[in-house]
Amino acid sequence: MSAQPVSPSRLSLNQITTKNWSLPEAVQGCLDAGIPAIGLWRDKVAETGVAEAAKLVREAGLAVSTLCRGGFLTAPDPDGRHAALAENLRALDEAAELGTDTLVLVVGGLPDGSRDLVGARERVAELLAELAPHAGDLGVRLAIEPLHPMFCADRAVVSTLGQALDLAERFPVEQVGVVVDSYHVWWDPELASQIARAGARIASYQVCDWTLPLPADALLGRGHVGDGHIDFRTMTEQVTAAGYTGWIEVEIFNDTIWNTPGADTLRTMIERHHAHVEAP
Amino acid sequence: MSAQPVSPSRLSLNQITTKNWSLPEAVQGCLDAGIPAIGLWRDKVAETGVAEAAKLVREAGLAVSTLCRGGFLTAPDPDGRHAALAENLRALDEAAELGTDTLVLVVGGLPDGSRDLVGARERVAELLAELAPHAGDLGVRLAIEPLHPMFCADRAVVSTLGQALDLAERFPVEQVGVVVDSYHVWWDPELASQIARAGARIASYQVCDWTLPLPADALLGRGHVGDGHIDFRTMTEQVTAAGYTGWIEVEIFNDTIWNTPGADTLRTMIERHHAHVEAP
Repeated sequence: MSAQPVSPSRLSLNQITTKNWSLPEAVQGCLDAGIPAIGLWRDKVAETGVAEAAKLVREAGLAVSTLCRGGFLTAPDPDGRHAALAENLRALDEAAELGTDTLVLVVGGLPDGSRDLVGARERVAELLAELAPHAGDLGVRLAIEPLHPMFCADRAVVSTLGQALDLAERFPVEQVGVVVDSYHVWWDPELASQIARAGARIASYQVCDWTLPLPADALLGRGHVGDGHIDFRTMTEQVTAAGYTGWIEVEIFNDTIWNTPGADTLRTMIERHHAHVEAP
Repeated sequence: MSAQPVSPSRLSLNQITTKNWSLPEAVQGCLDAGIPAIGLWRDKVAETGVAEAAKLVREAGLAVSTLCRGGFLTAPDPDGRHAALAENLRALDEAAELGTDTLVLVVGGLPDGSRDLVGARERVAELLAELAPHAGDLGVRLAIEPLHPMFCADRAVVSTLGQALDLAERFPVEQVGVVVDSYHVWWDPELASQIARAGARIASYQVCDWTLPLPADALLGRGHVGDGHIDFRTMTEQVTAAGYTGWIEVEIFNDTIWNTPGADTLRTMIERHHAHVEAP
């Protein structure tokens, strides 16, 4: 079975965008819509089993743009650090088995009760140093994702593309890269210069829009491309000018979209991709 | 009538923290609590009248740390720009009459329907250039407040201290400064270096804490110093090392705190100030 003829040649469905679909449903949805790639989530993969999931996407002819996600590297105690390392090594192995070259990392927030942001950031660097060689051996890149500063306390102490690059550049380019996710970085006054600086470090370009008001759960406020305040044409030009030619992954956390039939969501994704990101 | 003996010698009550108090009530609250300064809001001042408000705080012996707020400078059309200029000139005059040397500016978000962040930022610079000489003549500084990036679309296209300094440094130091507000800047990986750079540009140091979860209205999520994730001791040391010796203003937007009796709020402010910001 091979993929349908595809029009949006660089578009990838990040699986969280169709959260209510199982992995087999998401794979079929991509085939039906002509979307050539998928970004997988570890929890969904686990439901199917890693080997079976790998077989499923391979036989469908889909590329795996990323695996989401590793990270959470800020534990201060030896047990916490050891557990984080073990978990990330498993995630790297899964990424290799699934056939993707990119493991997205959400680095983790402040440990409970801590206000030591500088220390938390140092621990991220330390654990990256332990993981990077293993990633290189497997041919999988650790892709540091700066998260919007509103998630600094609880999810990611890496908040800007510049900061992610400061970390990534300590390692060989094939071992550690960065994610440019429109939602997290669009506001940054240094965005243009940091995307240019990123160059070959860009391991993934993820898109969704900044919409207002923020919902009660700030995690779930992302909108379809075109529904909010982000200038995708300009950002895509900048990412392209930096040399990135890889997948453009739509990753949306939004209850309303999650409750929309998946096929409708994919149709909207393709329309918006052509209207705002890449002309057909 | 003179102020009571004061222990927290640099503490100022930003009036929004006791939103349900009128100006006369807030002035009396500061006197009762021994707080020597107040940051005024234009809407509260207008209820009393500018001349009467000026007389009230002067006779109470209170310093006026700031006037909040001017700004909203991103309108793209001539009428909108003209109206913004006129409004800010009025605010500068009020600041001078009230006896403060600092007008806090929230620069404004993206105009309706616009995704042109670069253009909006340019318009802020253009209107600052028109306002700055008038501010200098009155002895009032325009204090650019970078707002947290989650307010970039709708309230302030200036999101970092570095960006605020890039703007401020185009003008004489006595005309344009910056606000360091802990809530807005605490996450910034460049915070230490940008505070050091700011030096004499620091026109105001405002404090409140980053608490989670964010409430339904993200504007209202601020907590008392000590209730959240911010390391105030370190930030205060950095601001002090940069040469700032002015007021430390507590500015909290929070429905629960607004519904607390003002005297209780001021007591908590003083306790937290001594515990986390400045030893008594």
